[in-house]
Amino acid sequence: MTEKLFVGIGEIRLVIGEEKLSDLFKQVEEKVEWLASFGKSEKNGVTRQLYSKEWQSAQKAVEKQMEEIGLHTYYDDVGNLFGRLMGRQEKSSTILTGSHIDTVIDGGKYDGAYGVIAGLIAIEHLYKHYGLPQKNIEVVSLCEEEGSRFPMTYWGSGSITGIKSFEDIQDLKDAAGIPFVEAMQQAGFGQGKYSPPRRNDLDCFIELHIEQGEVLEREEKSIGIVSHIVGQRRYNITVIGESNHAGTTPMRWRKDAMYAATGLIQVLMERAKETSPDFVATVGQMYVEPNISNVIPRKVTFSVDIRHSDENVLFGFCDDVFKEFERIASRHDTHLNIHNWMNEKPVKMCEKLNKISESILEREQVPFKKMTSGAGHDSQVFGQFCPTSLLFVPSHKGISHSPYEFTKTQDLKQGIELLIKVLYELAY
Amino acid sequence: MTEKLFVGIGEIRLVIGEEKLSDLFKQVEEKVEWLASFGKSEKNGVTRQLYSKEWQSAQKAVEKQMEEIGLHTYYDDVGNLFGRLMGRQEKSSTILTGSHIDTVIDGGKYDGAYGVIAGLIAIEHLYKHYGLPQKNIEVVSLCEEEGSRFPMTYWGSGSITGIKSFEDIQDLKDAAGIPFVEAMQQAGFGQGKYSPPRRNDLDCFIELHIEQGEVLEREEKSIGIVSHIVGQRRYNITVIGESNHAGTTPMRWRKDAMYAATGLIQVLMERAKETSPDFVATVGQMYVEPNISNVIPRKVTFSVDIRHSDENVLFGFCDDVFKEFERIASRHDTHLNIHNWMNEKPVKMCEKLNKISESILEREQVPFKKMTSGAGHDSQVFGQFCPTSLLFVPSHKGISHSPYEFTKTQDLKQGIELLIKVLYELAY
Repeated sequence: MTEKLFVGIGEIRLVIGEEKLSDLFKQVEEKVEWLASFGKSEKNGVTRQLYSKEWQSAQKAVEKQMEEIGLHTYYDDVGNLFGRLMGRQEKSSTILTGSHIDTVIDGGKYDGAYGVIAGLIAIEHLYKHYGLPQKNIEVVSLCEEEGSRFPMTYWGSGSITGIKSFEDIQDLKDAAGIPFVEAMQQAGFGQGKYSPPRRNDLDCFIELHIEQGEVLEREEKSIGIVSHIVGQRRYNITVIGESNHAGTTPMRWRKDAMYAATGLIQVLMERAKETSPDFVATVGQMYVEPNISNVIPRKVTFSVDIRHSDENVLFGFCDDVFKEFERIASRHDTHLNIHNWMNEKPVKMCEKLNKISESILEREQVPFKKMTSGAGHDSQVFGQFCPTSLLFVPSHKGISHSPYEFTKTQDLKQGIELLIKVLYELAY
Repeated sequence: MTEKLFVGIGEIRLVIGEEKLSDLFKQVEEKVEWLASFGKSEKNGVTRQLYSKEWQSAQKAVEKQMEEIGLHTYYDDVGNLFGRLMGRQEKSSTILTGSHIDTVIDGGKYDGAYGVIAGLIAIEHLYKHYGLPQKNIEVVSLCEEEGSRFPMTYWGSGSITGIKSFEDIQDLKDAAGIPFVEAMQQAGFGQGKYSPPRRNDLDCFIELHIEQGEVLEREEKSIGIVSHIVGQRRYNITVIGESNHAGTTPMRWRKDAMYAATGLIQVLMERAKETSPDFVATVGQMYVEPNISNVIPRKVTFSVDIRHSDENVLFGFCDDVFKEFERIASRHDTHLNIHNWMNEKPVKMCEKLNKISESILEREQVPFKKMTSGAGHDSQVFGQFCPTSLLFVPSHKGISHSPYEFTKTQDLKQGIELLIKVLYELAY
């Protein structure tokens, strides 16, 4: 399918006059507020967890919008919502765009939502100005990406690509003890009423998303073209020493889990900085036992999150650092347990798809940056399945998963313009 | 009073034949089990919190024992229990020995209890074999030392010495919300029914206690003679950085409170080791915000507990290390808050009193060690008020505040023999 996709794509064909794009500015501002009104939280954020009432209202509202634009709408059996602009070609394959509709608790207005809104606006613009495309264009409002209600991420894209199935969610429950299956069924899905989510007609997936970092803003770029979504490895590191009295135990006889653990973290950070400018390491979580000010800690557990776009770099880093961890732990007369609980490989985005965006932006002299994505996105699931392009717009100060998440309307518009042009090149 | 106390004490006079001491072994074993039976916990530890039913039963049982020995018993108005062997001298001053009766939750059989038991056995032995002393000898079962029910330590010794008063406990409550005053009154105290706790007739205080450390055991000494109770300073150190996404924030732009805090802790520990072999530093407690594995911590708070017998060393250490803390925090672009919430000066024990023990142990070729106490004891309160001697017996593996707290009977006996001889020298 990939081969056929790029046949005939050479010089960028579409030039859109400013007059045609003049309404985008107002449209995007309105639609951001409209979608954020479903699940608006007390703290002025958005809470739209998978299969909740707020989530259902949002999907219904998006469905209505799709119908008003003139799209053929349908759900699949996990709750992904699609709006299709039918292609002229017989048995046409599909160009898919969109993002996820679910949010974290008190999330922002843009994370996920922007990609859905951008798809709606782009497809409306294309239909209005250029009529039906050769190939199907679909905008998808993916049911789930965040994993903030159930311990499950990428349920929407995972179901479409066949990476996830109903088996994976059988035993899952949310914090209130509600089973995943029950929540899904109460929202009307998971009972065979809709078509199976697995797709085999997708030519490619294009996702427009906020950066959730501050690289673009700091470097004054309007668009980020993502080459890779970084690989992530997460660990829990446990250091076990011996509890003892803070006053009566000389330093030389201690088996101090805190002293050892903080030494490990220092080494981790120093090595991360030396490894590569785009290598990141984070210790976000720590638990101490017994956690009493006058007792030497017996046990310290901390999380390690490391990310990079090259899997070999990740492997090499772990090899090296964990050997050093062992040496330090043993110097402190403590035991070490290293538990790896997440291991996501880096995913390469489609160079040819990215090249279309690059050509458009170069021609129009829009400042852009080729970059990696340090955050996970549905594109990393699609990217293992079909040609995929992930495009970023700037996030103010990099703030995300927060009511303070913000992207300037001018930047939102710039992203949608690009999406319109890319979809045109691929589908018309 | 100090001057008079040591008049006439030169050569050690008392030599006790082995036959007189032959019953000590059995007596101490029995009494340890007897006292531990009041407040015995499910985990086979002892829970005897201030003014609780278990505490009341224990005090009553000790009172009965005192009476059986032939002592004059009385409580003071905070619940300290005294048993007096009246001196022959008119208006005699008092030689006081004993320790505390309260325990932590699931504490051991020896902490505090040993000092009370030792006092009972010693005074009984002296009365039986040598009749009435010249000066009063009293054994005290102090109401409170641990601070494990209310946020108040040394309530017993503090009340006797006038360092603490009813004003200090007016607003205190335990974890169940019961006011200190109410608990005290329900146990029958704090209503003026008994004599005021403040004493002005004390010649000296001698406390026999388990070491709660493993120095004596490791060095194969039977007795520790404490020269100083160390000074303690405790701090909460707060590092404030900025929360950010673990994937999208390059290392160079981070304000990582965890990276900074672990750097501070490493410096603290390294400097502590360099300062002096008997300098100790402990970070027992840490809290991280938001404590999520994929979010760079915004705030890390950790405790610092430092102890040494020389206050100038403590001051110099803090000066030096906190300056370095500021440098490190600022290198990480984080803010630092240093909050000092405990500041106990080192307390010197009485050299002349200690000398009596030394002479006895040297003469009898008992291996002993002059040492500092890293833990706090009632002796540090008495030590600011009257000549005080704190004597240690070994703790197996240094384990304390635990059902596994253990001291060999032979060591317990050795301590009591010493106490008998010291009391004889001082009171007969």
